[in-house]
Amino acid sequence: MKKLKNDTLLRALLRQPTEYTPVWLMRQAGRYLSEYNQTRARAGNFLALCKNPNFATEVTMQPLARFPLDAAILFSDILTIPDAMGLGLYFAEGEGPKFERPLREEREIYALSVPDPAVHLRYVIDAVSQIRGALNNQIPLIGFSGSPFTLACYMVEGCGGTDFRQIKTMLYQRPELLHHILNINAQAVIAYLNAQIESGAQAVMIFDTWGGALSHAAYREFSLHYINQIVAGLKREHNGQRIPSIIFTKGGGLWLEAIAESGCDAVGLDWTTDIAEARRRIGHKVSLQGNLDPAVLFAAPEIITTEVEKILTGYGHGHGHVFNLGHGISQFTPPESALVLVEAVHTLSRKYHQ
Amino acid sequence: MKKLKNDTLLRALLRQPTEYTPVWLMRQAGRYLSEYNQTRARAGNFLALCKNPNFATEVTMQPLARFPLDAAILFSDILTIPDAMGLGLYFAEGEGPKFERPLREEREIYALSVPDPAVHLRYVIDAVSQIRGALNNQIPLIGFSGSPFTLACYMVEGCGGTDFRQIKTMLYQRPELLHHILNINAQAVIAYLNAQIESGAQAVMIFDTWGGALSHAAYREFSLHYINQIVAGLKREHNGQRIPSIIFTKGGGLWLEAIAESGCDAVGLDWTTDIAEARRRIGHKVSLQGNLDPAVLFAAPEIITTEVEKILTGYGHGHGHVFNLGHGISQFTPPESALVLVEAVHTLSRKYHQ
Repeated sequence: MKKLKNDTLLRALLRQPTEYTPVWLMRQAGRYLSEYNQTRARAGNFLALCKNPNFATEVTMQPLARFPLDAAILFSDILTIPDAMGLGLYFAEGEGPKFERPLREEREIYALSVPDPAVHLRYVIDAVSQIRGALNNQIPLIGFSGSPFTLACYMVEGCGGTDFRQIKTMLYQRPELLHHILNINAQAVIAYLNAQIESGAQAVMIFDTWGGALSHAAYREFSLHYINQIVAGLKREHNGQRIPSIIFTKGGGLWLEAIAESGCDAVGLDWTTDIAEARRRIGHKVSLQGNLDPAVLFAAPEIITTEVEKILTGYGHGHGHVFNLGHGISQFTPPESALVLVEAVHTLSRKYHQ
Repeated sequence: MKKLKNDTLLRALLRQPTEYTPVWLMRQAGRYLSEYNQTRARAGNFLALCKNPNFATEVTMQPLARFPLDAAILFSDILTIPDAMGLGLYFAEGEGPKFERPLREEREIYALSVPDPAVHLRYVIDAVSQIRGALNNQIPLIGFSGSPFTLACYMVEGCGGTDFRQIKTMLYQRPELLHHILNINAQAVIAYLNAQIESGAQAVMIFDTWGGALSHAAYREFSLHYINQIVAGLKREHNGQRIPSIIFTKGGGLWLEAIAESGCDAVGLDWTTDIAEARRRIGHKVSLQGNLDPAVLFAAPEIITTEVEKILTGYGHGHGHVFNLGHGISQFTPPESALVLVEAVHTLSRKYHQ
């Protein structure tokens, strides 16, 4: 095993000493980069981009050529698992993801089965290996999955951005049906993330994009419970290396203590949470990842720098902070602004690590 | 002054003893009621409904005929103020509110002025008087306004449901411009709510629908700061009666302590907040309003009753709780479910007030 040249991210996720605060950006390979749009045009569409390991590798590497990021993240979609379950993922032009066959009937739900990643998600596993090759041990690769509840939202609603009427009706009226889906999803996510780890992912992140739409009690029962199962089922080591895990529930700032108890190594924060307060609440248990408002990147360089400094100061002295946005980078972000952010984090954070 | 027959809501808002927990529903006059849709069809469209005091009175009264609610709320739109400022509010069929002339240029922003409610918002003031007449002192009438920041979102973005790109770019890049808008808005809201109070509103509520989209620091500077100004500028009494105020920031659960310091009488909670925890945090200072997930109303009567009981138990013994949903009632709600909710609150809450 060749050693990683820059393992700052992995050390920060494990609350080990680092020289500076590592930084990466959620959705760092994406539409704000012209080269991404060119590759996507060559691939034909977003799904073709995800399903072809060559294209997935190409776009994963693109932001790294522009910015001195401390991690790469697998380029993929969060809905690969339900697609592999046969729900028929597609993207209508100019709209978000949709499923041809959303789960509406009880028999469809009880017919669900856990896809074998080596068979049905081969293209993701191949992409992970290929990206690791392209990275050549310069920086670590993060694998990821959607959370069981977030996947279920799309599976039941059939699309994103809804009022959650279908899934919440199921949640309150037929909780056993939703628990059945979530159980299958949790098993699927464990198999999927472990397959990513075995093929080279050096850290894994669970995106619980819609958990924040739940009530505090429903969040615990229908989202966090299954995230806990996943964390317990993940390979903790691969080839002698610890594989850190990150949990990110957007809108979950009220529930940080419960999330930190999952056994994960790091908790992602959206921008509504004060990182100083979050560190006081859970910083003795886990690392924190976040949490700049992505809209700051629409402002001038000196303002970006000031806002970066505020978050670094908020976290304060010591290790265990991975800088990131509080949500995915906007497609309207000027790429130069991302560079300002990354350089500001690297430069300004050193004094907090002395 | 004739005495209110049922002043339970007002007493609960002021943390005075009540016999049971009062209940009303955000957006209780709305599309889930067939009689509302009929009145709206007669009016022609939503805006015509708001601008005609006869229609506004008619729809305000409709839910009271169906459910034994403890309050009426003025039927109006939250965007009446920017409409009165000349931005040209309109509703495209099947879409949310939009402005013909959103604020984009500096000169447009500095040309804004505070509308005189007696002139430009006469139709609202007249509706308040007329509704008070129709209510005949049975239950109190709640007046309301959008918060300065929420109004500014629509004024700058031109519509709702956006990624807040325009307003957040202004916030980070040109904060002085946004502060100018917010200052005007705060003055406008004070004048507007005081005019509602003078014409008969017996409590007032500020809806900060979009404050939760801000970072913790930006929330304080760009939303709460102006809400504080409003609370300080509101008439505390009218005709010898205290006029309680309610602040509701959707997604503001992390910031309850700061909101409770505004000087308001009650804080609205969305369904992500545990009401037991909220009471521990701020219940010694303010009343709490909320916080059932509106999606519970898609479930069967016994489930609605169970979920109502959970919230009543969460708040626990004693006064100072106004039952409500954590957000506006969905247009897809069966009206029978709203009745189950109201009756469950009335029946089940008595034991907590003994």
